[in-house]
Amino acid sequence: MHQLILTFSCNDTSGIVHAVTGAIVGCGGNITELQQFTSLDTGRFFMRVEVDTPVHPDDFCQVIEQVSDLFGAAWQVSAANRKARALVLVSKAAGPLNDLLFHLRAGDLPIEIPLILSNHDNLRSLAEFYGIEFGSQAVLPENKHEFENRIRQCVADLDIDLVVLARYMQILSPELCDDLAGRVINIHHSFLPGFKGANPYRQAHIRGVKLIGATAHFVTSDLDEGPIIEQNVHRVDHSYTVSELSSVGQRLESETLTAAVRLFAQKRIFLDGIRTVIFK
Amino acid sequence: MHQLILTFSCNDTSGIVHAVTGAIVGCGGNITELQQFTSLDTGRFFMRVEVDTPVHPDDFCQVIEQVSDLFGAAWQVSAANRKARALVLVSKAAGPLNDLLFHLRAGDLPIEIPLILSNHDNLRSLAEFYGIEFGSQAVLPENKHEFENRIRQCVADLDIDLVVLARYMQILSPELCDDLAGRVINIHHSFLPGFKGANPYRQAHIRGVKLIGATAHFVTSDLDEGPIIEQNVHRVDHSYTVSELSSVGQRLESETLTAAVRLFAQKRIFLDGIRTVIFK
Amino acid sequence: MHQLILTFSCNDTSGIVHAVTGAIVGCGGNITELQQFTSLDTGRFFMRVEVDTPVHPDDFCQVIEQVSDLFGAAWQVSAANRKARALVLVSKAAGPLNDLLFHLRAGDLPIEIPLILSNHDNLRSLAEFYGIEFGSQAVLPENKHEFENRIRQCVADLDIDLVVLARYMQILSPELCDDLAGRVINIHHSFLPGFKGANPYRQAHIRGVKLIGATAHFVTSDLDEGPIIEQNVHRVDHSYTVSELSSVGQRLESETLTAAVRLFAQKRIFLDGIRTVIFK
Amino acid sequence: MHQLILTFSCNDTSGIVHAVTGAIVGCGGNITELQQFTSLDTGRFFMRVEVDTPVHPDDFCQVIEQVSDLFGAAWQVSAANRKARALVLVSKAAGPLNDLLFHLRAGDLPIEIPLILSNHDNLRSLAEFYGIEFGSQAVLPENKHEFENRIRQCVADLDIDLVVLARYMQILSPELCDDLAGRVINIHHSFLPGFKGANPYRQAHIRGVKLIGATAHFVTSDLDEGPIIEQNVHRVDHSYTVSELSSVGQRLESETLTAAVRLFAQKRIFLDGIRTVIFK
Repeated sequence: MHQLILTFSCNDTSGIVHAVTGAIVGCGGNITELQQFTSLDTGRFFMRVEVDTPVHPDDFCQVIEQVSDLFGAAWQVSAANRKARALVLVSKAAGPLNDLLFHLRAGDLPIEIPLILSNHDNLRSLAEFYGIEFGSQAVLPENKHEFENRIRQCVADLDIDLVVLARYMQILSPELCDDLAGRVINIHHSFLPGFKGANPYRQAHIRGVKLIGATAHFVTSDLDEGPIIEQNVHRVDHSYTVSELSSVGQRLESETLTAAVRLFAQKRIFLDGIRTVIFK
Repeated sequence: MHQLILTFSCNDTSGIVHAVTGAIVGCGGNITELQQFTSLDTGRFFMRVEVDTPVHPDDFCQVIEQVSDLFGAAWQVSAANRKARALVLVSKAAGPLNDLLFHLRAGDLPIEIPLILSNHDNLRSLAEFYGIEFGSQAVLPENKHEFENRIRQCVADLDIDLVVLARYMQILSPELCDDLAGRVINIHHSFLPGFKGANPYRQAHIRGVKLIGATAHFVTSDLDEGPIIEQNVHRVDHSYTVSELSSVGQRLESETLTAAVRLFAQKRIFLDGIRTVIFK
Repeated sequence: MHQLILTFSCNDTSGIVHAVTGAIVGCGGNITELQQFTSLDTGRFFMRVEVDTPVHPDDFCQVIEQVSDLFGAAWQVSAANRKARALVLVSKAAGPLNDLLFHLRAGDLPIEIPLILSNHDNLRSLAEFYGIEFGSQAVLPENKHEFENRIRQCVADLDIDLVVLARYMQILSPELCDDLAGRVINIHHSFLPGFKGANPYRQAHIRGVKLIGATAHFVTSDLDEGPIIEQNVHRVDHSYTVSELSSVGQRLESETLTAAVRLFAQKRIFLDGIRTVIFK
Repeated sequence: MHQLILTFSCNDTSGIVHAVTGAIVGCGGNITELQQFTSLDTGRFFMRVEVDTPVHPDDFCQVIEQVSDLFGAAWQVSAANRKARALVLVSKAAGPLNDLLFHLRAGDLPIEIPLILSNHDNLRSLAEFYGIEFGSQAVLPENKHEFENRIRQCVADLDIDLVVLARYMQILSPELCDDLAGRVINIHHSFLPGFKGANPYRQAHIRGVKLIGATAHFVTSDLDEGPIIEQNVHRVDHSYTVSELSSVGQRLESETLTAAVRLFAQKRIFLDGIRTVIFK
């Protein structure tokens, strides 16, 4: 039996679930998980199905393609045990990378990381401990374009599904954001109220926030405003120093980024305009 | 158009979703929400579907009945705007009743309460403020059987879907629990670790717990051990007095009970052995 | 024995705690709770002490005044069982007012509410159920000044400690904000990221936030940017309608406002520049 | 200037804070943080003070000793920058150890780990990556006594303040628990309701809990019932497999254990009968 994940989205109309599940039944498939959602905002229909089927995946795809043609749907079929291939970009902060690598090794994060790229060298030993190739080079205004081309090349050559910005402290160019739309996940701190500008934990301290948070989101050319994937908060009080706030924040960032990468790897995230639909 | 909610459960096999959605398509129905889950523990399949259909509900039911016969399924069709009818039992504590009534009036809790029954009289004015009939009588060992028969009678006469124990401080007899299985929701305090016996907030205080909680669950004859519907916790510390712990706990209990009643009213709760499957 | 609460703040220097506690010992007082904090940002020292003393409160105040003179301190002594007197301003939304009144009656919110003022009449019956005087009048641009004078008058005549904006949908004038600085608490919704402008729950829905929140804060003339007192969040997902987001948000707002009012009533909130120091 | 932390506890009476702060003032000390609490349950008084003083710590101790004699107090003075020395015991699970070591290196966990001991060898490479000595030996019923003597010896020889059971899967003997009372922290899973016996995540799954948790506590001979230090929970639902519950639980355990160790290292935990008083 092949265990497959089907994702399927199109403009909403009646009969979609029946048609898709009919195609699955026709393949002798058994549905083990099915979620669907119709967005009233955009009129889009989204579905994720896990199927056990005796049919070869290529044949299954052919059947799904016929159904998708009826609805003008975007769809994808993946082996349930296929790991998403992630390129991770980092700078100096170790937390998010350490969390990704630990859970990768622990077996509860279904990804492969063929390469880590950085604009600093200090996380090399961590990468090596986990047996993962690590490339670094200084990124300056004059060679940023070249570095981004290296990213593009790696994405193509290494069959990358997902680029993870694990506290990568460079802003991607709008062109790269567009080229990789829906495939780049970033993590950043979040506060109530929000702050603009530098040194956010200092601002949060001065402002006396009682909660600090982290948001994982898809990267778009609209900086830090891409579709939200996951958010977490932690309670703090006036006695936290800036450094303690930052420490709490970095733990949140690590946890939130790993959760978002897991959702992506499990094909649970759909884009619905400027927001996400997530089937947990 | 009729807006209907269909719940459907049976032993898992292939083709159920296809068959049910085929019946819906046959009725010209459009699925606006669909969730399903297969329990690996019990082998049961559960599905909840919201449908817009031009067909009269009685005709829709006939079509679903034919499908259900194929799978030996338990099913129910309700109008989406039909409010669940709840009989609420209380004693002296006002919190959970106040929360239910406030949200009922606010329009975000789709229930009707034709009657509140109590073994005390002190909540009568609250019931009257919200315009709800209130019956009270002292419940003693010698007339407990009679009071429980009154409950049975009310359930029958008032077409009650759900009995809510909103801090009703009497234990229902095993016979009544069995008669109303899956239709009685209770709320009680919960702690890590759990405590047996009297005065739990005092025990929690002595033990120095850092979290206190509340659990809403279906009532079974196995006291406080029925299938869990909803749980919440709140952080506390050593400085909380017993009375402050109790105050925090009662707020949690109110919030958790109202949430559980809402889930029931929306037909989102399924029983899967000794646990619940909840489609949020 | 008199149970007193002393709050004391001044520029930090050495010997403050010793001097204050010496004064207390001199009054035969026993300290039952003491918290202090020195703000590295502003150099201010803050202390809250609960004391049991056989000395008359007036005499106790005289002794404290002598100590305060040494440090140029701001201080206040209150009977621990004195309830804060709150003027509550509301518009149409019932949630926060209902929560305040319920907990006031339940005995776990140490305030008195001599008057509720509103620019609408619909919450009158709720106020009457709890036996609290309710005044209402339409507030229009041309009489807003007059209504604010009525507020000023009530604060003076009714010996008001605290003005609570329980979803009062009018903006206070900068003059009134200044007159009542540190004595007006407001509640408003909060999101990650923040939104400006009208219909925030619709914006939150479109943006697909995964957490919604509420912030209670002191009112300043800088709208919604006053010192934060308390914050809470609740997890949501893409399936929440605007109305469901709003319903969750209003529950959070009620809970958060009541918590902030309780902290104020217990003299636990200190202003430290644009933030609060809160001794829980 | 010397930055010192003073902890002080005794039976409650009046004048303690004044006497202790007087001694500090006498040493030219400036109090930068002070917390105190009187337990109504046990009648014990607890205080933690951070002091900047020009006096040598030995002289400061002499002064404190004189005060402590007045009240029969237990007290301790430590340099604020002295790191707690921890012996970590592990078995096969990597999560809690990884979390401790990461935060130790990140600089936000003020401990030193001179040695890790294990009854398995598989975490050796992780220890080596962080440059920490790792000793392992199989622990069987016949040599358990010998292994516990090795623990005792290490505690003595290495000047150990704290023994951390980071998912160490052996039960310590009552004698060792007594010898190290108040100095051994363990982490274990927690649920609402609690479960006894083997395979708790399977039980939690069958029971359909909606929250899973973790509790860090001091070890006593009453297994898993020692004084609670820290607790956290995470929301789950029916769709989590046993393995996913376990994965969520292990993340909670790691986070909770690290938090408890940090509190210990900062001298923030006091024992008050069977519970803890924690000054955050």
